[in-house]
Amino acid sequence: MAAFVGVNTGNMADQKPTLFTCFSPALLHLYDVNDAIVVIIDVFRATSTIASALQNGAKCVIPVDTVAKAVEISKRIDGIAAGERDGKIAEGLEHGNSPLEYPREFVEGKTLVLTTTNGTRLLHMALENGADTIITGSFPNLDAVCRYLVKQQKNVILGCAGWKDRFNLEDSLFAGAVIHQVKEFFRIHCDSSLTAELLYLQQKDRLQDFVPLLTHYHRLVERFGLIEDIRFCTTPNLANVLPVYRNGKLIIGEEE
Amino acid sequence: MAAFVGVNTGNMADQKPTLFTCFSPALLHLYDVNDAIVVIIDVFRATSTIASALQNGAKCVIPVDTVAKAVEISKRIDGIAAGERDGKIAEGLEHGNSPLEYPREFVEGKTLVLTTTNGTRLLHMALENGADTIITGSFPNLDAVCRYLVKQQKNVILGCAGWKDRFNLEDSLFAGAVIHQVKEFFRIHCDSSLTAELLYLQQKDRLQDFVPLLTHYHRLVERFGLIEDIRFCTTPNLANVLPVYRNGKLIIGEEE
Repeated sequence: MAAFVGVNTGNMADQKPTLFTCFSPALLHLYDVNDAIVVIIDVFRATSTIASALQNGAKCVIPVDTVAKAVEISKRIDGIAAGERDGKIAEGLEHGNSPLEYPREFVEGKTLVLTTTNGTRLLHMALENGADTIITGSFPNLDAVCRYLVKQQKNVILGCAGWKDRFNLEDSLFAGAVIHQVKEFFRIHCDSSLTAELLYLQQKDRLQDFVPLLTHYHRLVERFGLIEDIRFCTTPNLANVLPVYRNGKLIIGEEE
Repeated sequence: MAAFVGVNTGNMADQKPTLFTCFSPALLHLYDVNDAIVVIIDVFRATSTIASALQNGAKCVIPVDTVAKAVEISKRIDGIAAGERDGKIAEGLEHGNSPLEYPREFVEGKTLVLTTTNGTRLLHMALENGADTIITGSFPNLDAVCRYLVKQQKNVILGCAGWKDRFNLEDSLFAGAVIHQVKEFFRIHCDSSLTAELLYLQQKDRLQDFVPLLTHYHRLVERFGLIEDIRFCTTPNLANVLPVYRNGKLIIGEEE
């Protein structure tokens, strides 16, 4: 199996854009994001929540890096201040980072101002590093992300948000799921991408049995009982929209 | 399978020392090395060369961070100045970083002064961060490393040298091989360790077929023709010594 995954070589491949996987925000500086699409991946739970809120009709999601900013901006624009620190609703906020907290009847037509431990931080790092385009991805919008990457034909960095700069498995598994779908369109010569795809292929048919082994599962389920969140975040295509970052906001992008 | 790997839980496990895997030198600061044994892992090729040289009777290996230091120290003590930059013999040095360059007839009784792109750099980082004990590991000394870790009963950081701070697969596979042997003696709650072990279990029976997919294989074999080096570096227990860092030198440690 492995002989056919992860690495594309040959002359034809040299025409293709590159794809790299970055396992931690602390490694982002090793990759050239300037002419690349950066996919921000924070499966548990920021990028799952972003997909869910937009799918359910939110006008946009404004990712911010501090609780103070979330409160200030949401007051000014009559938005919903939301976010978490260390897995629970951040002090000073009324709404958290659960994709199930934002059904259509609550979020439609509204703006979510979201701050999270890992995902929104990585998004701002990619922005500061001059990323050409930023989109967000998680299992709920897997196919939308893959369709977009294939159509754009630009270099791609799959940016895993991790947990406080540590590697985590759920983000890597999603990177592997993307790679598995799009790899024929990219030149991939990157051990992180190979690892991500091998892990995804090994676990994809038993993902719900596998996730209880993850560090983050213990944090979310054993401490906060968020089993339904975990299921949503690891199920493909439940909220198949493409969040694109434009002028400070994540909006539903056109898949062209 | 995965239900039984990677994570130990339960009351008994709480008595055990911890084990973490660090995928890149750029992530080392996230781990507490102060009371831990740090295993420096640079499979291609520094820690394979270190095992080989010591196994073949070298008095010791002095790891240094610059070519200038390698030259200066080796002149002073009549040692062998050796090392690489970007996979080939560093300019100004006569000997490289190949484990096969140091047979007994050449290296016995001598001191190797070694500088490399990734492995010796990580060793110095672990030292500066206050690591309790530093040892080096690669497939050629797999069993010696595992026996030592099990006997010491201290916290362990498996430190992958990577390639210029990027994740690489060969170091992670070795981390997985160690974890697979020692895990019952440690409390392991770390997605990097789980990933390393899953990859190792997936590839261990086909390691020689798998390594041609690795980024570093292309660098070493396609550019420099070092296929025999690769074979040595990925074969378990060909140089089963335990290199321990003491007072600026790597010497054969007693497995006590």
